[in-house]
Amino acid sequence: MDYVLKIECKDEQGLIYRIADVVFKYQLNIIKNDEFVDPDKSRFFMRAHLRGDVDSGAFQGTLRAMLPSDANIYLSPVRKKNIIILGTKESHCVGDILLKHNSDDLNANILAIVSNYDTLEPLAQKFDIPYHCVSHEGLSREEHEKRVLEVLSGYEVDYLILAKYMRILSSVFVRHYENKMINIHHSFLPAFIGANPYKQAYERGVKIIGATAHFVTNDLDEGPIIAQDVIHINHTMGWKEMQRAGRNVEKVVLSNALDLALEDRIFVYENKTVIF
Amino acid sequence: MDYVLKIECKDEQGLIYRIADVVFKYQLNIIKNDEFVDPDKSRFFMRAHLRGDVDSGAFQGTLRAMLPSDANIYLSPVRKKNIIILGTKESHCVGDILLKHNSDDLNANILAIVSNYDTLEPLAQKFDIPYHCVSHEGLSREEHEKRVLEVLSGYEVDYLILAKYMRILSSVFVRHYENKMINIHHSFLPAFIGANPYKQAYERGVKIIGATAHFVTNDLDEGPIIAQDVIHINHTMGWKEMQRAGRNVEKVVLSNALDLALEDRIFVYENKTVIF
Amino acid sequence: MDYVLKIECKDEQGLIYRIADVVFKYQLNIIKNDEFVDPDKSRFFMRAHLRGDVDSGAFQGTLRAMLPSDANIYLSPVRKKNIIILGTKESHCVGDILLKHNSDDLNANILAIVSNYDTLEPLAQKFDIPYHCVSHEGLSREEHEKRVLEVLSGYEVDYLILAKYMRILSSVFVRHYENKMINIHHSFLPAFIGANPYKQAYERGVKIIGATAHFVTNDLDEGPIIAQDVIHINHTMGWKEMQRAGRNVEKVVLSNALDLALEDRIFVYENKTVIF
Amino acid sequence: MDYVLKIECKDEQGLIYRIADVVFKYQLNIIKNDEFVDPDKSRFFMRAHLRGDVDSGAFQGTLRAMLPSDANIYLSPVRKKNIIILGTKESHCVGDILLKHNSDDLNANILAIVSNYDTLEPLAQKFDIPYHCVSHEGLSREEHEKRVLEVLSGYEVDYLILAKYMRILSSVFVRHYENKMINIHHSFLPAFIGANPYKQAYERGVKIIGATAHFVTNDLDEGPIIAQDVIHINHTMGWKEMQRAGRNVEKVVLSNALDLALEDRIFVYENKTVIF
Repeated sequence: MDYVLKIECKDEQGLIYRIADVVFKYQLNIIKNDEFVDPDKSRFFMRAHLRGDVDSGAFQGTLRAMLPSDANIYLSPVRKKNIIILGTKESHCVGDILLKHNSDDLNANILAIVSNYDTLEPLAQKFDIPYHCVSHEGLSREEHEKRVLEVLSGYEVDYLILAKYMRILSSVFVRHYENKMINIHHSFLPAFIGANPYKQAYERGVKIIGATAHFVTNDLDEGPIIAQDVIHINHTMGWKEMQRAGRNVEKVVLSNALDLALEDRIFVYENKTVIF
Repeated sequence: MDYVLKIECKDEQGLIYRIADVVFKYQLNIIKNDEFVDPDKSRFFMRAHLRGDVDSGAFQGTLRAMLPSDANIYLSPVRKKNIIILGTKESHCVGDILLKHNSDDLNANILAIVSNYDTLEPLAQKFDIPYHCVSHEGLSREEHEKRVLEVLSGYEVDYLILAKYMRILSSVFVRHYENKMINIHHSFLPAFIGANPYKQAYERGVKIIGATAHFVTNDLDEGPIIAQDVIHINHTMGWKEMQRAGRNVEKVVLSNALDLALEDRIFVYENKTVIF
Repeated sequence: MDYVLKIECKDEQGLIYRIADVVFKYQLNIIKNDEFVDPDKSRFFMRAHLRGDVDSGAFQGTLRAMLPSDANIYLSPVRKKNIIILGTKESHCVGDILLKHNSDDLNANILAIVSNYDTLEPLAQKFDIPYHCVSHEGLSREEHEKRVLEVLSGYEVDYLILAKYMRILSSVFVRHYENKMINIHHSFLPAFIGANPYKQAYERGVKIIGATAHFVTNDLDEGPIIAQDVIHINHTMGWKEMQRAGRNVEKVVLSNALDLALEDRIFVYENKTVIF
Repeated sequence: MDYVLKIECKDEQGLIYRIADVVFKYQLNIIKNDEFVDPDKSRFFMRAHLRGDVDSGAFQGTLRAMLPSDANIYLSPVRKKNIIILGTKESHCVGDILLKHNSDDLNANILAIVSNYDTLEPLAQKFDIPYHCVSHEGLSREEHEKRVLEVLSGYEVDYLILAKYMRILSSVFVRHYENKMINIHHSFLPAFIGANPYKQAYERGVKIIGATAHFVTNDLDEGPIIAQDVIHINHTMGWKEMQRAGRNVEKVVLSNALDLALEDRIFVYENKTVIF
């Protein structure tokens, strides 16, 4: 059996020794191990890929007794995570995830696609993924989110993937899925927060455009960043050409961020990410 | 004799034909030719590298008669431009330009280095470049700029290169060198405008950092962008590590922007650049 | 009506003037124009996007009379090109093209998918694209290619897209589709020519991997390069991780090359490409 | 006192525990710790940044007793390394290192510059670095290398930096400085091994060019790769333009590789590098 162990706590002398000691006593093999100490915050982060048979309650109990009282311990068998995709009308990110899933290149089960339009339904049908259209027409944000939450409540989900979901989420909604919602924003944040970043980029006359995958928090486009990338552009490109070229970056950045999440490689700490 | 011809005017049918006609009649050879029409603004841009002997006044006069009345025509023999470097304390961008100049890899004469500190003087001396230290200590911005302008007035200069010059310039100063001052800003603008962008980047937790070379206008870090580039970073880097890694990007982006300016490849139009 | 005009010929004084003259006389508007003269070969390349109504035979005839006798003139209305995809078993490049086509983001009609396996048939069916499985089992290369050519002969095709088609093509086959077959090779050529470039890359211990889109010629992986890109990798990645990460580069590079071909932006000359 | 500890040995269960145990007993603080196990070779790599006062012989002895018999243990106080630069005529890489050294941005002492020409002597003098011109004129490779080795023997050196040193080194020479010589090659290896890679790149018509920093071994351009990067180019660039543009990549890649070496971050194993 393979496990991912993640530990985050205040830094102290001897932490690695104590953890290695427990791992050793439980006869677990360390396949891969990464550590990081934030020198400013004196904060310790560790992710280990372990192999062996273990009573996971006992193991965590022993660990906890050895660690500072503020320690966050996460232990999970290596398994396929369950995700739900939220989309609106654009298909490139949703389609990319569906394709990877279809060719068994995604370490996740796609439980459903939820959208405020029916535009993406034919695509979902091609890949036999349940589709829930929850229109926002005529509804308050509160009411619409309530209906979306009802749909979601029917599933046991590890991550919600906002694959160009163009609705702003309220803090009520966000609270339900803290550090479980990954959004792709079509700019290299913090540049061009908000609506139509390609138009903003065009008007500013930048020479690079990009995309940012981040966890969703209450503040629009302000959540912890997971992955970013850019491409070079030039004066011949209007904002629609930028948008078109940007789609390739968006889908690749989202896909990379999703992989990191699915392999339990991300720590969120003080609105930043530590990624192993 | 080689010339660069730059034309910018409103777009009309037959422009290329009319220009090619004049060039042909003056028996000039077109070595290289680039055109661009901005579809939104219906604006025509052309840069040609011409070879031949020509009465440049007559040639421009004939051209002007053929072009829309709003045409900007620039004709210059291909020659080494004269630049002055403005610096403060950091040496990596200044040094990079000095090195390129020293190995005859810069198509410019460096007339002088002007700084508000004496920190860079030993470096200037190594390369036999006149150094003017104009301290801002105890002076108002107005008074300091007046003294800098006095120093600059002794030189005939094509471009001022702000190679990490850490003073904000007033609109009075900027007016003297409109579209002639190139600044390197140590972020991928418009992200992290203003002071200490690396610290801002660190606090935001971005996964890329970058640099932007732009013409200086009245609005801080808002001028027309010439060149940008980024590098990927990760959670192990504090802001000083980012700053150190960023220096390589800063100097390369500034150097690339400078090359473009020295070869008369840049048009500035509505706070953007068209670059051939 | 919109046209793309491409001209390639030996360079001479007055070429642009002569061409602009003809374009002007036929009352065509130049929407976009690019030129390049190869200084080593003294070769002239021009691509213009023209608008207007024209007798295309007469226009080309007049042009030809004005140009050097070796001129290649290509005039085509702007239209959707017809493509056929050749694949084998891997689905990421094929799927990416299908998705773009499905969201009307590809300027082409996909006439069919041809493969030596039936692996990709379910994917083709999802998107209602005719699928021809031409197995190579038990056949000589000559015999297999003959059967593929028979299938292809039923279509009028502008480009064959080899989207991870893992068969080497004979010169007989290549001759049928000269400069009409675009292949994606999973390395930054000319590094790692031939089989399993990711394994080669892993064994060499490189720190970047990449992909190359090129026209297919008789020499394996030696054809004119259209587009290339790379990503950074590190020692933690085995060749299968490289392969997985490389898929994103492969599909984006192929997609970019395909766009350039579909917009008639590529000249092939002496085993290189000039791209506007 | 700060130390870097590097351990490389065959992988075994409990290695981290045993090492952490020894570190803990010697009351050393782990500031930073990285591990990697090569799954193919079952090889363990660890680098730790330690802080504390330690009898380094005793510490290493205790460690050795705990580790597999094939273990390579490296323990070094964190200190400025001593380097010698080998150059020929080109100044951009040499100058970049000198500039960084001059602004205290290089964690090394530059003991000397050695060259087969006197071209770089004025540059060395500007920065007060001893310069040894050892001309190869009229000498056999053996005789020339003997003279270079004589010069080098006067120095205690950690790394030789081949900053565009354009001489092929014999296996006799290489043996003296195994894993201590870092070369910058002006292509993305393994593409364009050997002479004038920019000309080779131009003739092949590639769309990217790059640079590779690697340790020098007996096989020309075949040594373990430390760092690589590329830039995008296009058809307008002849090989001299590529060469000029490539200089920025060369100096940055060499500088990055040098930093990694100076901080003891590199392991060499089976002609590859593991870099923390």
